[in-house]
Amino acid sequence: MQQQSILLLGAGRSATHLIDYIAQYSHKSNITFTIADISQETLQAKTQQYPWVKTLTIQPNNNEEQYESIVSQNTIVISLLPPQLHLQVAKICLRYEKHLLTASYLSEAMKQLHQEAKEKKLIFLNEAGLDPGIDHMSAMETLDKIRAQGGKITSFQSFCGGLIAPESDNNPWGYKFTWNPRNVVLAGQGTPAQYIYQGKYKYVPYSQLFTNPINLYFETVGDYEAYPNRDSLSYRTHYQLDDIPTMLRGTIRKKGYCKAWNNLVRLGITDDSLPIENLSTWAEWFEAFLPNTDNNKSIEDKLAEVLQLSKDDESLQKLLWIGLQEDENINTKETLTSAQILQKKLEQKWKIAPQDKDLVLMQHQFQYELQNKKYQITANLIVKGENATHTAMSKTVGLPLAIATKLVAENKIQEYGVMIPIYKQWYEPILAELKHFDIIFQEKHTELQK
Amino acid sequence: MQQQSILLLGAGRSATHLIDYIAQYSHKSNITFTIADISQETLQAKTQQYPWVKTLTIQPNNNEEQYESIVSQNTIVISLLPPQLHLQVAKICLRYEKHLLTASYLSEAMKQLHQEAKEKKLIFLNEAGLDPGIDHMSAMETLDKIRAQGGKITSFQSFCGGLIAPESDNNPWGYKFTWNPRNVVLAGQGTPAQYIYQGKYKYVPYSQLFTNPINLYFETVGDYEAYPNRDSLSYRTHYQLDDIPTMLRGTIRKKGYCKAWNNLVRLGITDDSLPIENLSTWAEWFEAFLPNTDNNKSIEDKLAEVLQLSKDDESLQKLLWIGLQEDENINTKETLTSAQILQKKLEQKWKIAPQDKDLVLMQHQFQYELQNKKYQITANLIVKGENATHTAMSKTVGLPLAIATKLVAENKIQEYGVMIPIYKQWYEPILAELKHFDIIFQEKHTELQK
Repeated sequence: MQQQSILLLGAGRSATHLIDYIAQYSHKSNITFTIADISQETLQAKTQQYPWVKTLTIQPNNNEEQYESIVSQNTIVISLLPPQLHLQVAKICLRYEKHLLTASYLSEAMKQLHQEAKEKKLIFLNEAGLDPGIDHMSAMETLDKIRAQGGKITSFQSFCGGLIAPESDNNPWGYKFTWNPRNVVLAGQGTPAQYIYQGKYKYVPYSQLFTNPINLYFETVGDYEAYPNRDSLSYRTHYQLDDIPTMLRGTIRKKGYCKAWNNLVRLGITDDSLPIENLSTWAEWFEAFLPNTDNNKSIEDKLAEVLQLSKDDESLQKLLWIGLQEDENINTKETLTSAQILQKKLEQKWKIAPQDKDLVLMQHQFQYELQNKKYQITANLIVKGENATHTAMSKTVGLPLAIATKLVAENKIQEYGVMIPIYKQWYEPILAELKHFDIIFQEKHTELQK
Repeated sequence: MQQQSILLLGAGRSATHLIDYIAQYSHKSNITFTIADISQETLQAKTQQYPWVKTLTIQPNNNEEQYESIVSQNTIVISLLPPQLHLQVAKICLRYEKHLLTASYLSEAMKQLHQEAKEKKLIFLNEAGLDPGIDHMSAMETLDKIRAQGGKITSFQSFCGGLIAPESDNNPWGYKFTWNPRNVVLAGQGTPAQYIYQGKYKYVPYSQLFTNPINLYFETVGDYEAYPNRDSLSYRTHYQLDDIPTMLRGTIRKKGYCKAWNNLVRLGITDDSLPIENLSTWAEWFEAFLPNTDNNKSIEDKLAEVLQLSKDDESLQKLLWIGLQEDENINTKETLTSAQILQKKLEQKWKIAPQDKDLVLMQHQFQYELQNKKYQITANLIVKGENATHTAMSKTVGLPLAIATKLVAENKIQEYGVMIPIYKQWYEPILAELKHFDIIFQEKHTELQK
């Protein structure tokens, strides 16, 4: 059997638990483990307990030769680089015949590599993190069980969110950044969200996305809500649910978040198309998005008027809490879009403190028919972080990817090409091992009235 | 003096009056006039009274050699081709040293040709139609007059619209297509509108664009309203108004149009990003943009609920008049975006009838200070068309361009390079001659209370 060696590209926010897992596994199995990152500081902090792990400081210029030289010396590559870099790495992996694993969405360009990867007996696993990742694996496990019993699935709704634990929640939005802030600020922009509900296609434009959130409840942590994700329809094929009448995926936020965020959307504050010039203070920027008024109304009054809300509406108070109306200088040398200015402010206000515990929530709602009866299964996942480094986000993104890497290293997978972990040979061992790390779904089975 | 010959590229909707004018002028002055278009039928219809005008049927493939061969044989080129083709024509004009005139917005790429055109003593005149065109010329005439008196301009608001005359207005929107339908459906999408009001910069996102229209009144035709145009700020430099506290340009619609159109915007019906599959009827498409409802509510009730309007609200009735809720097949073989489906429907409902008269409206509002007093000038332009071919739109776009062409043919312009008609040598003779065609601004001067 070939002697394996594992290379991790990128040691950032979501790599902490993955590094811990693979460091320990590589030590036990006598496998070389190398981590490459642009920050020597990060490498040092995350590997100091593991003297046997090799580290490499790479240049932030995505130099082809740099990647070639490190990829070519290993047999399995994990990429936690920014998603737009995966393809470059994948092509190098193809050239040097290395396996590749990522936690990112499978791109169209990546799909094109399937035939060649398959012929070379390479595994290119994508979407092996949390969302996408654990969502696929846990959904497929239950869907396959229902189908094995002869059940017919009539509805599948699935929700996921990276949030803050109640004990660390000290702001009115119930939110702090545990993930890419830019993605949070731009969420839902671009094309309308698409899903199917009771046999009817639904398109939700940005202007409506945050207006009708779906209520969700999680025991021990409380009330949440969700707005529809970009494209729920494409998952029908992945999950072999092509004829399902209801299929919806959504993003979870604390109850009340959507209405408040929608105020920003309505005002146009989340616009990312227009670099804004001639502005110096937060208030000048914010007021530039309010209608003309000749009188001396307060910002609170103007907001209440344009948004048609009462002044004591919670969603308005959340908006004012951000401090967009402050008379201080924005302090930027670049010309930023409104979305970028908003992100700058939110990064101050929604910053996770070193001892804060984050929270990962996932909920699947399955409905199915079996022997002329209707059933529902609700499966909840609740994972809390330890602190701002060992986050629930890093744990739930990194561990499935780490376990998948071990499966590849141990030649447990006999399927080749470009894929996502919707097959039993992936999800069974990964979900089983995740349970040892307290990543466990709580299921509730009920019979529904027809 | 060089013997001139004039080439018109494009004989479509906005060319009718221009052809009439230049046909007569060329006959009188013994100048060759050639018209090239992809439709032989159009060429025949528009030139049958003018046997001395040459016509050329061109291929719709924008072949470089085709344009080269016809451009090279003339001295002055007028392009009424789609705007994206102007640059290709401009480069050929540069190569063969021909003058070029268009009614389209001056693009950044066109600006790059300035130095070379200037050195070759060529005139590349852009924005010489209605809007842009007459707006610049009439604005500059009044602004220059105020400045010549020593007045200080404090506010300039300018509005323009292509509409339908009251006597031909038989639909609740007060609108029919007299111009590119796609531009009407997509109006305001992309970046927020920008303007400055009482010294404060204002950004209006698409979600707010149609919510606060400005009321306008025109004697003899009635009440209208306007929403802000894309970028009012860039005009400050053109008009030498860099320090002006209020500068706003807007598009005119019949009173009530904006609120009704905003219903479509709020529902997401104007989305042009997502090609929609799996739909067959108008109703299926329309309902896909309404929220989930489990019950059997009528479309009218659902709309009233999601838009928070009463069922007898005029803006809701306008929406229903379009017939988006009809149970008939959309009948399209292509996969269209929602905006394209809407356009298809509106092209049926807002079609101008052969004997309909269209209406062009323009209003400038100037405010200035002179000898410690404040004044306002309101200048209104009202032009009605004769029928669906000799439209007010064709007249007001084509005649300024035609007169500008005559000025070039007669060597009246001694300024070279890429330009727009904001200089006296252009606007004075053009506005003077437009009066003979009843294109006349009515001015009202008032003193304002300080």
